[in-house]
Amino acid sequence: MKVVTSRDNALVKRLHAMAASTSQQRRADHVLAEGIHLATAFLDAGGVPHQCVISESALDDVEAQAVLRRIDDHRVTMLPDALFRQVSTVVQGVGLLLLLDRATPVLPDAIERDCVVLDGLQDAGNVGSILRSAAAAGVRDVFCVSGTAYAWSSKVLRSGMGAHWHLDIHEHVEPADVLSRLRVPLALTDSHGAQPIDRIDLGGPVAWVFGNEGAGVSAAWRDAPHLRVTIPQPGGMESLNVAAAAAICLFEQGRQRRAHQG
Amino acid sequence: MKVVTSRDNALVKRLHAMAASTSQQRRADHVLAEGIHLATAFLDAGGVPHQCVISESALDDVEAQAVLRRIDDHRVTMLPDALFRQVSTVVQGVGLLLLLDRATPVLPDAIERDCVVLDGLQDAGNVGSILRSAAAAGVRDVFCVSGTAYAWSSKVLRSGMGAHWHLDIHEHVEPADVLSRLRVPLALTDSHGAQPIDRIDLGGPVAWVFGNEGAGVSAAWRDAPHLRVTIPQPGGMESLNVAAAAAICLFEQGRQRRAHQG
Repeated sequence: MKVVTSRDNALVKRLHAMAASTSQQRRADHVLAEGIHLATAFLDAGGVPHQCVISESALDDVEAQAVLRRIDDHRVTMLPDALFRQVSTVVQGVGLLLLLDRATPVLPDAIERDCVVLDGLQDAGNVGSILRSAAAAGVRDVFCVSGTAYAWSSKVLRSGMGAHWHLDIHEHVEPADVLSRLRVPLALTDSHGAQPIDRIDLGGPVAWVFGNEGAGVSAAWRDAPHLRVTIPQPGGMESLNVAAAAAICLFEQGRQRRAHQG
Repeated sequence: MKVVTSRDNALVKRLHAMAASTSQQRRADHVLAEGIHLATAFLDAGGVPHQCVISESALDDVEAQAVLRRIDDHRVTMLPDALFRQVSTVVQGVGLLLLLDRATPVLPDAIERDCVVLDGLQDAGNVGSILRSAAAAGVRDVFCVSGTAYAWSSKVLRSGMGAHWHLDIHEHVEPADVLSRLRVPLALTDSHGAQPIDRIDLGGPVAWVFGNEGAGVSAAWRDAPHLRVTIPQPGGMESLNVAAAAAICLFEQGRQRRAHQG
């Protein structure tokens, strides 16, 4: 284990810049995953971190020790607590973070299985929640259209709770990239006048598109042939949070498939 | 319409304090609802605001003008843009906010219909999303156990998108307050070993309890007789975001009821 005490250290300077903003994280070569839960999920998925950085006091933490035992010692750097706080994006919790290589999956030639398209979602919590629901549902491919919040930001990683390592997350995708490869029906939610989701056959693979929190799904998708799916809302409200809607769609798809299997 | 240009004005000072923190909002006599969408939802629900505060430039906005036409002129105060920004909790958007009386519904003697219990949820986005899902599902009563994020904070109001005005939100509730009044089955989600939610009869009213993002549902609920409900997760992930889980539960309940009705 290396010990670093200077804020002029190259690694500390890099981390400090990344902790400062999502746009710095987007430009960085690596991904910042902070906290015991994310680190454990990453290691459980077979990942090897580029670097592990730990605060001095975290060395006494049993869970942090369990993480450290799974990482080659030469990849571990310890910082005094005060210095660690300067490179951390979280206020509470055990001081442990991983610097990771960002996965950059290749776009498949043909999209033939379930997938999720995020079309300009702005809120990191929503993006993380949908990634989590997709991973829970067994969806593998997620396409993030340009304008969507950066999927590997520390905020999205935190709300994704490890889902990232069960998914192929394709970023900077344009609608045409997906539409030209699509071999499965496109499904868009529509709060008015469409068929209730539980009356639509979702037994086969589906490409779900979830749109921006304010503007919804953009024209490129609406202009393509698609299933119009309504989530019935018997109460007074006319809309659901987009991550709530996504969870319902992915769950209902799974329910229909289990029902078909008896 | 009143025009205020001084930051020493009593209303400005009150708003400034409220904009600074959720804890100030919790202590305040009124609720701060910002933006055209929330204001419109409030007025649509038949509400009368205590005060409406608008920025000078918002006077030119067509949607803001439509809101103003629905409010008695003596309740409206205009601030120069620079002063408005100091009392605003949002960075972008049309400068319009309402100060509202906080609804404080009385606890029912007996809880005999669907309801949602929020047991220590910390994230304002999650609380807002669940309120929105509840209102969409036609659930009326929401009980917030002490320790839950303040339901009338400007953050929760924003993510609730107007759901607050379709609900009776009971705050500072203890588990015993609910359990002693409960005449319907309690339902808790459990990711392991319980019955899949779509195999459980949800035709009658249910009290759903959703727990803290990290610790889950507290012992007071787990020790009471309850339905154990699992949301099947065929993918690798073992957990869903709590607001995603709530949306699935409330949707599945509605689906079963529609199916029973044919």
